[in-house]
Amino acid sequence: MIILKLGGSVLTKKDSNHAEVNYKNLNRIATEIHNFFLVKDSNHDFADGLIIVHGAGSFGHPYAQKYQIGKPFKREEYGEKRIGFSKTQNSVNKLNTIICECLISKKIPCVSIQPSSFITTNNKRINTFNLNLIVKYLDEGFVPVIYGDVVLDTKLKVAVLSGDQILQYIAKNLKSRKINEIILGTDVDGVFTKNPKKHNNAKLIRKVSSLEDIEVLDSTTNIDVTGGMIGKIKELLELADLGIESKIINANKEGLIANALLNKKVKCSLITKNK
Amino acid sequence: MIILKLGGSVLTKKDSNHAEVNYKNLNRIATEIHNFFLVKDSNHDFADGLIIVHGAGSFGHPYAQKYQIGKPFKREEYGEKRIGFSKTQNSVNKLNTIICECLISKKIPCVSIQPSSFITTNNKRINTFNLNLIVKYLDEGFVPVIYGDVVLDTKLKVAVLSGDQILQYIAKNLKSRKINEIILGTDVDGVFTKNPKKHNNAKLIRKVSSLEDIEVLDSTTNIDVTGGMIGKIKELLELADLGIESKIINANKEGLIANALLNKKVKCSLITKNK
Repeated sequence: MIILKLGGSVLTKKDSNHAEVNYKNLNRIATEIHNFFLVKDSNHDFADGLIIVHGAGSFGHPYAQKYQIGKPFKREEYGEKRIGFSKTQNSVNKLNTIICECLISKKIPCVSIQPSSFITTNNKRINTFNLNLIVKYLDEGFVPVIYGDVVLDTKLKVAVLSGDQILQYIAKNLKSRKINEIILGTDVDGVFTKNPKKHNNAKLIRKVSSLEDIEVLDSTTNIDVTGGMIGKIKELLELADLGIESKIINANKEGLIANALLNKKVKCSLITKNK
Repeated sequence: MIILKLGGSVLTKKDSNHAEVNYKNLNRIATEIHNFFLVKDSNHDFADGLIIVHGAGSFGHPYAQKYQIGKPFKREEYGEKRIGFSKTQNSVNKLNTIICECLISKKIPCVSIQPSSFITTNNKRINTFNLNLIVKYLDEGFVPVIYGDVVLDTKLKVAVLSGDQILQYIAKNLKSRKINEIILGTDVDGVFTKNPKKHNNAKLIRKVSSLEDIEVLDSTTNIDVTGGMIGKIKELLELADLGIESKIINANKEGLIANALLNKKVKCSLITKNK
């Protein structure tokens, strides 16, 4: 089966100071997924399944930032923190509803899976996450669509749960399924030696096997390269340790998701321990 | 603690052939709940908690009906059935997002709980439903908002899960909390001897202790009285058997929800086994 992550920077206008969908990208990507289904169906091999994970982009970050979700706080601030949680949850839920509506319009039988309804974290790392129902939806031919959300945290009361951590957890714990591919659609071609948006001579790192491949570089530059690329790679290296490879590709470019889904060769950074 | 059910016929324009919110009712009811919080907070006794359950109204029924969710079907119809499930889920999710947004605007720290993310049924009755997280949200001072949805069904593949069944299940199984009140806001004053919308001489039944209180009447008239009043009463009589009383009130009338929440006397039908 395939796990496809769609970054918030691809599906929303991430730099917008208010929640805004990138409908052009969303519609195009939904069509690419639809086309993948057509090919798979004609090969009669779609029993494998697809899980989509998406980020929150400008639907999540502005609220999470404003209300400092996941940061320690005083007892008397809990009232305001709760409202921040409610607003963030409501906003990312809205984004998920829009994404699912678009997928449905392309005949993709998706099912929204809301993390805050059944997942908790402990100090920002997943604590409880029962995968049984996701497996059942896959068995029944649905495409689960799960996303970055806010959740209850046993230490911090409330925390942000990123789509990247969700992806890592599912890939690591979905024992009943063979994972054929993990694809992360971002707004850059992969992991670069420098910020590709600022430096013309930035080079794509085709294969990332450890954080050292990146940390020899100016770490501050790299940390802000693509808003959390380092965090993303840390999650993916945990999978690489288990022999599970993943690809970081540019989902802003037409056809790359379609090709990656069909396991065709695409420009990417491969996160792997294989030499 | 209190469980408040808000009927789909109150929050949406239920007879509309497309999904349409009744914003006038929604805003008024959110304000009544807000005012209840103000009183409770000043009494320092809100630690008890509130759970809101809402119906799907015109956001759920037209899709569930069109795609015959919960009805047996042939294998070759599963593709279409899945899309029906996706559309229904997407639509009720949208309604829930709108309701939560309105509650948040009145400073109510609500948290959306999506049934299809963690509940399954067996032949339309709840099979798995872990209440732990709802209890945690209550412990942390949140107001869980759960709703009528579509879910996976072990026998029928997919089924409709009504808000009324959810309410009954929570009331029956939330062992760690004392339930002080169960209030069902509908679009009529309670259970009537005849359809009150058609018959001027219909009389309100103040106390319902068994189905016989209703079935002595013309059952066909009563079945369509308020779209599923009989089904509602069956769920509530199960609670009455356990000594848990509930009130059916008219949520279209201003102030009734506010008064019922404060346990003031309101016009209603009481579902109880007490003489």
